[in-house]
Amino acid sequence: VARIALDAMGGDLGPAEAVAGAIDAAAGGVDVVLVGDEAQIAAQLALTGSSLPIVHAPEVVHMGEDPARAIREKPGSSVATCARMVRDGSADGFVSAGSTGAAMASAAIIIGRLERVMRPTIASVFPTDGSPTVVLDSGANPEVKPEHIVQFAEMGAALSETYFDVTNPRVGLLNIGEEKGKGRVLDKEAYALLEAAPVNFIGNVEGRDVATDRADVIVTDGFTGNVFLKTTEGAASLTARLILAALDAAPGDVRSEVLPLLDPIRRRMDYEETGGAHLLGTRGVVVIAHGSSTRRAIANALRMASDGANRGLVARVADRIGR
Amino acid sequence: VARIALDAMGGDLGPAEAVAGAIDAAAGGVDVVLVGDEAQIAAQLALTGSSLPIVHAPEVVHMGEDPARAIREKPGSSVATCARMVRDGSADGFVSAGSTGAAMASAAIIIGRLERVMRPTIASVFPTDGSPTVVLDSGANPEVKPEHIVQFAEMGAALSETYFDVTNPRVGLLNIGEEKGKGRVLDKEAYALLEAAPVNFIGNVEGRDVATDRADVIVTDGFTGNVFLKTTEGAASLTARLILAALDAAPGDVRSEVLPLLDPIRRRMDYEETGGAHLLGTRGVVVIAHGSSTRRAIANALRMASDGANRGLVARVADRIGR
Repeated sequence: VARIALDAMGGDLGPAEAVAGAIDAAAGGVDVVLVGDEAQIAAQLALTGSSLPIVHAPEVVHMGEDPARAIREKPGSSVATCARMVRDGSADGFVSAGSTGAAMASAAIIIGRLERVMRPTIASVFPTDGSPTVVLDSGANPEVKPEHIVQFAEMGAALSETYFDVTNPRVGLLNIGEEKGKGRVLDKEAYALLEAAPVNFIGNVEGRDVATDRADVIVTDGFTGNVFLKTTEGAASLTARLILAALDAAPGDVRSEVLPLLDPIRRRMDYEETGGAHLLGTRGVVVIAHGSSTRRAIANALRMASDGANRGLVARVADRIGR
Repeated sequence: VARIALDAMGGDLGPAEAVAGAIDAAAGGVDVVLVGDEAQIAAQLALTGSSLPIVHAPEVVHMGEDPARAIREKPGSSVATCARMVRDGSADGFVSAGSTGAAMASAAIIIGRLERVMRPTIASVFPTDGSPTVVLDSGANPEVKPEHIVQFAEMGAALSETYFDVTNPRVGLLNIGEEKGKGRVLDKEAYALLEAAPVNFIGNVEGRDVATDRADVIVTDGFTGNVFLKTTEGAASLTARLILAALDAAPGDVRSEVLPLLDPIRRRMDYEETGGAHLLGTRGVVVIAHGSSTRRAIANALRMASDGANRGLVARVADRIGR
C-alpha cells in the first residue's frame, strides 16, 4: 500500500483541519504521514485521541514567498520535507494545500522530473455529463511551446487511463473554433504536432466543451487553462447562486422538497470532492489541494494521491512520455 | 432616430427568422432596413403582411469563406452592402448574424477604423450579480500586443458608459492571479501600460470574476477572451441542465411551482436577450449576432445597435481613444 506524506502546515485553515482530514483518510485505509511542526500536530492528534506517524519539519513556506528560493533557503520546511521523503522512498507521494508554487518547485527541484519530461504540468479534473475531463496545463506554465502541449496531452492521457479507466482517451486542443487552422501560431503548431503524436487526437475543442463529453483530455497553455478552470468555477457558482436565490421565493414546503434534490449537484460541482489537482511529470505522485481545503477536501486529496500511487500513475506517465 | 441595416441573409436560421426579428424591432421603434435578396425578403414580408424598406444585395458570404477575400470578391454581398450603407451615411449601424469574420472584415475594409485605433475589437456583455460586465477582446484578435489591450480597455469603458451608464468604469486585466507580476510577458506589460492609461484600472481579475461585481470592463487578448466567453456559456448551461434534470425527480406540483421561478434566470443567462457582441473601433455601430440567432435574438440585436447609435457610441469610443 502506498504511503502519502501530508504537508500539514500548508492550507489557509491550518494544521487542525489538515490533521482532521488525515485522520479521516487513514480511517478509510490511506497510509498517511503528517509532516510539519511536531508539537502542533501532536497536540491536534491528542485532542482527537488519534495516532498517526509524524515527521518533524520546523519551517513553513508562506504564500507570498518566491517558491524556488524558499525551497533552497528552507530545506526544513514541511513541503520540502514531503518532497525529500518521496525522493528517498519513505513516501510514494505527497499532498499540499500550501503555496502551489512551492509544491511545484519542491517537486521539480527535490524529487526531479521524469526522463524526457520538459515541463511538469498541473492537471485539473472537471465534471461533465459523462466521464470527467482532465484539463492541462491548468496553471504551472503560463508560457509554453507547442512541444510542451504535446507532452501535456501524453501526461493527461495517462491520468485519464489511471483514474477513470478510459481506453485510448480522446485528446482535444482548446481553441477558438473547431476547424483546423484556428487560433494563435502556438495552437496551429501544437495542432500539427498532436496529429503526429501517439495520442488519440480529436482536433480542436472549445470553451463550452468543458460541459460536454467530447474529450477526455483537453490541452492548452497554462495561462488559458487557468482562466478556463477559474471561469468554470465562477460561472457554475453564479448559476447555482441565482437558482438558489430564486428558490427562496418558493413556499417552504416546496423548498424543502427541492433542495435535497440539488445536493448531488452541489457535491459534483464541489472542489472538495475532487480534492485537488495533480502535478504530473515528476518522479512521485504530487497532489496540490485548494488553499482553503477543509477536512473533507484534505481527506479526498489524500485518497486521490493514494489511488494514484497504488495504480502506478508515475509509471504510466513515464510510459506515455517514452512512446 | 438612428437607422440600422440588417444583413438578412446571415444567420443559420435564414431570412425568415431575420425578417421576423426586424418586424418585431420595427414595432418597438427601431428604424430597420433589410439588406439581402429582394425577392426572398419581399416574400417573407408579404407572408406577414408587413412592410419594411429593402436594399437588394444579390450575393452572400458563407461561413467557411476567407473573410477578407470574400469581401473583396463579393462587393454585392449582403454584409458588404450593409457596411457600404454605414460608410455612405444611409445607415448608422448594421447587424449581422452571418460569419463573424466577414462582418469584421467588411467593417474594417469598407467602413474603416476610427483614427488611432490599432485593432477593432469584439466586446461581449456578461450578466453578473451587479451591472453587466463588458469583456474584450472576445475573439477578433487572437494575438495582440500590450498596447492593443490598453485600447480594448478604453473602448470597453466607452461601451460600459454608453449602455450601462457606469461612471468611470472599473477596468480589470484578466490574469491567473490577483497580484501584480502574474501572467505572461504580455500581461505584465499590459498591466504596466494600463496603470498609466486614462482608465480606472483596478488591477488583475481572475476567471471567476465573470460572476462577481469587481470590474465593469475585463480586458485580455482575443484568444483568452473567446475561451472565457465560451467557457462561461458552457459551465452555466451545464449547471442549469443538471439542476433541471434534478427537478425531474420532484413531484409534478413541486415542479410547476419551481420552474416559473427559474424563468428570469434563464432569460438572464440567455444570449438571445443580449442580442450580440459589439465590434468597436470602426466608424459605425456594428453588432455581431449569434449564428443561430432566433427572431427574438435578432430583434434584440437591432435594438442594441439602435440604442448604441442613438447614444453616440462611436463618438464616445473615439473620444476615449483620443484622450
